Amino acid sequence: MSDNDELLLSSERLDDLLTHDLKIIQSPEVFSFSMDAVLLARFASVPAKGKVLDLCTGNGVVPLLLSTRTKATIDGVEIQSRLADMAKRSVRLNGLHARVTIYEGDLRTFHQQSGYGGYDTVTVNPPYLPMGGGDRNANKHMEAARHEMHGTLDEIVTACARLVKSGGKVAMVHRPSRLIEIINSFTRAKLEPKRIRLVHPYAEAEANMVLIEAMRDAKPDVKVLPPLIVYNSKKEYNAELMHIYYGDTRAGKKES
Amino acid sequence: MSDNDELLLSSERLDDLLTHDLKIIQSPEVFSFSMDAVLLARFASVPAKGKVLDLCTGNGVVPLLLSTRTKATIDGVEIQSRLADMAKRSVRLNGLHARVTIYEGDLRTFHQQSGYGGYDTVTVNPPYLPMGGGDRNANKHMEAARHEMHGTLDEIVTACARLVKSGGKVAMVHRPSRLIEIINSFTRAKLEPKRIRLVHPYAEAEANMVLIEAMRDAKPDVKVLPPLIVYNSKKEYNAELMHIYYGDTRAGKKES
Repeated sequence: MSDNDELLLSSERLDDLLTHDLKIIQSPEVFSFSMDAVLLARFASVPAKGKVLDLCTGNGVVPLLLSTRTKATIDGVEIQSRLADMAKRSVRLNGLHARVTIYEGDLRTFHQQSGYGGYDTVTVNPPYLPMGGGDRNANKHMEAARHEMHGTLDEIVTACARLVKSGGKVAMVHRPSRLIEIINSFTRAKLEPKRIRLVHPYAEAEANMVLIEAMRDAKPDVKVLPPLIVYNSKKEYNAELMHIYYGDTRAGKKES
Repeated sequence: MSDNDELLLSSERLDDLLTHDLKIIQSPEVFSFSMDAVLLARFASVPAKGKVLDLCTGNGVVPLLLSTRTKATIDGVEIQSRLADMAKRSVRLNGLHARVTIYEGDLRTFHQQSGYGGYDTVTVNPPYLPMGGGDRNANKHMEAARHEMHGTLDEIVTACARLVKSGGKVAMVHRPSRLIEIINSFTRAKLEPKRIRLVHPYAEAEANMVLIEAMRDAKPDVKVLPPLIVYNSKKEYNAELMHIYYGDTRAGKKES
């Protein structure tokens, strides 16, 4: 029995984040992290130090990955107690508790404890489906991760705008089908999109993911970055994806 | 001296549109068509028949190219008399005057003669630069083609929305840097973007062109199409570009 086993509840397992020896607690009973979160953690502009916030943090995958890119303190907010608890244990397990803090709470009221405009960067990987749209999942943990049960897109964007400082960044990953709503919601909230990256499974396929980063109170002028193509024609990960997933570890480099 | 020479004014030349034996009158003294217009004419959803309108039609390149894709009647509107005159002569030269009509006029008041909501599809390749932004060109013809002298982005979008029918399409080509303004302007005008395609000079480069098509009075749900990459790593046109420029002619196929 390893030292880590005492941190795991029944049904849980310890997965490898494939970079910087990071581990993460996951369970088939709740939503596991996916490529979306990994790409968001790479895409977001993070300050070298300062304060970063991850909303809809789930089991904490984005704060864990962001911790390898910045010396900032990182807060995560998750409304589901089961997931927030897993995230807290993963933070401790990786020895990051001095710098990464997970809050169990509602992003719509989080400003009541954090105050307004305190973060340099806010990241968010929200549920992709509106309430009433798409398949409803029987498991309430899964449903909350996929459907806007605990906040609409507009409420989530409004929370981001309230929590980030003027000139700070808000980075989101979402489905391209909702890009117009996202852009309208961002600009209403004075979050001006500055960088967009579309993710396509293959070079000839429609985008199935969008990464978008806005700056609070900025002027309009957006860059659309080169497309991120996940698989080559042989159905293997492209070099950039390999680098995103395995790059640092394979290169044998570690930061502190 | 060929039969066509009498249609050409001094400084003008007859260029080949490389498809369906189409020719177009151009002059170094005024704005010549570019890849943007060719891509727009391919990208736009056109009805098999009905009514199509091209705003900011310049020397008429988009109506000429669209005429190969539809049996619809096609109107073009151009505010600069020099360009409108060239477009009219190009239409006649290609024997398309029964079906393609060029109007010299202001898109902001064109509804006074055309009425509201009469078109199935509206295409537009507007000037890319706001007044006061970027370099101002000494030549007024060039300046009007590049700068929003005769209508802001918002005025142009409003005109499109006024002229297209409910459920009809508006297709635009523009610079990605202005994508957020475009989307905000479209949605304010009840033009819901449904298809977006980014054009990148190379696979690893930021987008330098965006094609966007909206449907009047539709619900939100947009597709981001596969990226259009212009050049391969050997700086040759990619197969899709070759097809867009030369495809029909090389395949030896002609319609009517």
